[in-house]
Amino acid sequence: MMTVDWIAADWGTTNLRVWAIGKDGAVLAQAGSNKGMGSLKRDEFEGALLEVVGPWLTDGKRLPVIACGMVGARQGWLEAPYAKVPCPPLHADNMVSVPVQDPRISVSIIPGLCQMQPADVMRGEETQIAGYLFDKPDFDGVLCLPGTHTKWAQISAGEVVSFRTFMSGELFSLISTQSVLRHSIPADGWQQDAFASAVDDAISKPEAVASRLFSLRAESLLTDADPAAARARLSGLLIGMELAASRPYWLGQNIAIIGARALSDLYAKALSAQGCRPVITDNDTLTLSGLKAARAQMEKDQAQ
Amino acid sequence: MMTVDWIAADWGTTNLRVWAIGKDGAVLAQAGSNKGMGSLKRDEFEGALLEVVGPWLTDGKRLPVIACGMVGARQGWLEAPYAKVPCPPLHADNMVSVPVQDPRISVSIIPGLCQMQPADVMRGEETQIAGYLFDKPDFDGVLCLPGTHTKWAQISAGEVVSFRTFMSGELFSLISTQSVLRHSIPADGWQQDAFASAVDDAISKPEAVASRLFSLRAESLLTDADPAAARARLSGLLIGMELAASRPYWLGQNIAIIGARALSDLYAKALSAQGCRPVITDNDTLTLSGLKAARAQMEKDQAQ
Repeated sequence: MMTVDWIAADWGTTNLRVWAIGKDGAVLAQAGSNKGMGSLKRDEFEGALLEVVGPWLTDGKRLPVIACGMVGARQGWLEAPYAKVPCPPLHADNMVSVPVQDPRISVSIIPGLCQMQPADVMRGEETQIAGYLFDKPDFDGVLCLPGTHTKWAQISAGEVVSFRTFMSGELFSLISTQSVLRHSIPADGWQQDAFASAVDDAISKPEAVASRLFSLRAESLLTDADPAAARARLSGLLIGMELAASRPYWLGQNIAIIGARALSDLYAKALSAQGCRPVITDNDTLTLSGLKAARAQMEKDQAQ
Repeated sequence: MMTVDWIAADWGTTNLRVWAIGKDGAVLAQAGSNKGMGSLKRDEFEGALLEVVGPWLTDGKRLPVIACGMVGARQGWLEAPYAKVPCPPLHADNMVSVPVQDPRISVSIIPGLCQMQPADVMRGEETQIAGYLFDKPDFDGVLCLPGTHTKWAQISAGEVVSFRTFMSGELFSLISTQSVLRHSIPADGWQQDAFASAVDDAISKPEAVASRLFSLRAESLLTDADPAAARARLSGLLIGMELAASRPYWLGQNIAIIGARALSDLYAKALSAQGCRPVITDNDTLTLSGLKAARAQMEKDQAQ
């Protein structure tokens, strides 16, 4: 019979993923549901958690649950106030303890990070960053976390020094599926040359994004333009504008990209064309590593 | 009893507007429906037209109907192939005659304009431009037509020399209502200073658009930022990026803005801050003026 030591939870807007962790740090079981923060009222979080971790609990023993993500947002279970950068990606002192009814669990939430000038926030990515630094504590450079909202974070001496969020992923999705360009941009298909030249255009002339968008529509009406090229070009324009704006983060820096493989590859190719040598790290296990780092900190704290 | 000489029709994607015009050019009646091109199959156009103009028709007399807009698109009633710039905004030779069942009407559609390099198209705006030039045949300069898809057109010697389309209006709508920024941007409210400084930012550093978007969200989470300012700032960033890209159109040019009053005012203020002296013309009656110009051309053609 397995002995669960604690429970790790990645609780985002749309999903909840949980892992049962043993004394030695091994994953004994995992589970999940689609009860993300976005679909829950404040008094429904505990029930949603118990639904998935219930089988791992035993009477008379209180298991720690450590959670990260939007569960700690203002609209979440309990607001975990942002820690202000520069600071380590996570710190046991900043974790927020959530009052619960069930005597078999105790719940702590990892807070996100904020930056006052320029204003920025993250919630969830700090745990991935902590996971990355758990494995590579001496990393000094820039982490790029591509996604719906891509984050660029400057890391030094184990701290997040500054960071910046770009909405390129969300813009790509909105423009390609909701704007007039939806008639010209297919759901998939790719042309690497079109992507590369669009990145180039947008880095050297970021305003090109404004003038080139409608051209994608016009080209499909007037010529036999390859729809796959239009899709790649839109992506290239948006990522290129992001690179133009994030230049201080990547120029001459040691860069690691943490994200889903396909999107990370795009960022890597775009950065390589600018003379960077980014390293790609798969992000599948990083959140769990970060939650383990949080657990280790809490234990160290309690031991002192 | 009124004698209708011909019928003018502005037939866009979402609406149909028609005017009964007398021998002297006076508007005798007007009507409309929400049967725009977007909601009609090819064989439903004639019925949709007869529904609104039926009361004006008499047996034994065939009334000309002149239509502009998306009714002439590939997905419309009958495709009216684009005329290539440089060319006059409309020309009787390019108008397309639509076969109809009802002996009481004959229907002609005004084609849109296209530009091959850079690729661009317009359909409907050419009639507004023709209406503007009908009143001011000697206009030489640039017309700016703000809207969902803002058009900039260079006019010389009665011809559209070149033009460019920007999706700033559609982007504003998508970003403010569908992206994560919808939580921070209200449906109305305005702060002119925030707009002006955002235009300035984006003109001098167009890539600022990429980095500033998410800040609007973060500012609303971290500070007591005025939501009305966030709305004005988003608009300013997008219009500023458009002005950065359309600079060759407005720099040192004679500019007239044709559009809805509130949006035209924004463009006028942004351009004035750049040292331009744009003139605003209300566009309410320009489409009808353009349709009258088309009618006059057809009559001249038939007389020859």
